Amino acid sequence: MELLEKRIREDGTFLGNDILKVDNFLNHMIDVELIDEMGKEWARLFKGEKINKILTIEASGIGIACIAARHFGNVPVLFAKKSKSSNIGSDFYTAKAYSFTHGNVNDIVVSKKYLGKDDSVLIIDDFLANGEALLALTSICNAAGARVAGVGIAIEKHYQGGGDKIRAMGIRVESLAKIKSMSDGDVEFM
Amino acid sequence: MELLEKRIREDGTFLGNDILKVDNFLNHMIDVELIDEMGKEWARLFKGEKINKILTIEASGIGIACIAARHFGNVPVLFAKKSKSSNIGSDFYTAKAYSFTHGNVNDIVVSKKYLGKDDSVLIIDDFLANGEALLALTSICNAAGARVAGVGIAIEKHYQGGGDKIRAMGIRVESLAKIKSMSDGDVEFM
Repeated sequence: MELLEKRIREDGTFLGNDILKVDNFLNHMIDVELIDEMGKEWARLFKGEKINKILTIEASGIGIACIAARHFGNVPVLFAKKSKSSNIGSDFYTAKAYSFTHGNVNDIVVSKKYLGKDDSVLIIDDFLANGEALLALTSICNAAGARVAGVGIAIEKHYQGGGDKIRAMGIRVESLAKIKSMSDGDVEFM
Repeated sequence: MELLEKRIREDGTFLGNDILKVDNFLNHMIDVELIDEMGKEWARLFKGEKINKILTIEASGIGIACIAARHFGNVPVLFAKKSKSSNIGSDFYTAKAYSFTHGNVNDIVVSKKYLGKDDSVLIIDDFLANGEALLALTSICNAAGARVAGVGIAIEKHYQGGGDKIRAMGIRVESLAKIKSMSDGDVEFM
């Protein structure tokens, strides 16, 4: 998506060869017009898919998912929570996701009440790198018997391999900006 | 706001005399149409205020704030992060907020780059009880020299006093559902 790639080039901050900061328009301050265009684009890409729920994970995914939902007929947004305690009872689907950003393991939880076999789910998130969070979300969908209709990602760091790992599972992943490489403040998209 | 009060009566879960769960439409699964109506209502209430930024706090506030922003001319949304480390350097405004829900103290952080003396801010959050999170957000606005144009809250537990504490500071707080009392599954609005 040209608009997002342009914005990353102009306003993203590149630290070293691996860190891209977009906290001025995506995950601390949010440009609502930009994420609205992203929602429109996912709606175009996933047109024809019967999607009745959007699943994301706190915190940065929530705003993007809510705005996107407006382009999918106002389907409900469900956001997985990161739990500090692994003792959360039997009312939740849980999965573990290692965070490379924070160097810790998160237990991701979704209430069993809100996800089930009748659901056809679009998963949305801001970043896809190693795919840990996304694998956790898909495993929760599997546990619930829900269908993963597709995945919408804002920025995929393609060279980290997570996206292709998910695609190899037969899941359609649509990333609006796919980064081939980053180095010394320069970025190359696929 | 009739629509929200009705929804709380019908779909809220009341545990004991103090806990109201709304995770089926507000803070785990999100009814996007409902929060869109809430955004419209805040836009009506704060009409005439020059608001150029919406400030909220992760995680539950983010979706509400992003949808609301569309009714305020697509102003940017800035969300405060809950930091585990109090050693986050000098680039952030910080404030402490005690969480009654989780029984811990959160360091709330906002980058100094995104909030300043030219900002006229609407603060939005899902719940207002003792007002700890809101006091932290207003103190961050004060530190930045930003004007707090007002506060939009979905559900205020009025009997816990936080709302009136903020109002006594001269800040306009518009809560769409103000709970006077809760007991045994029954709720009384103001």
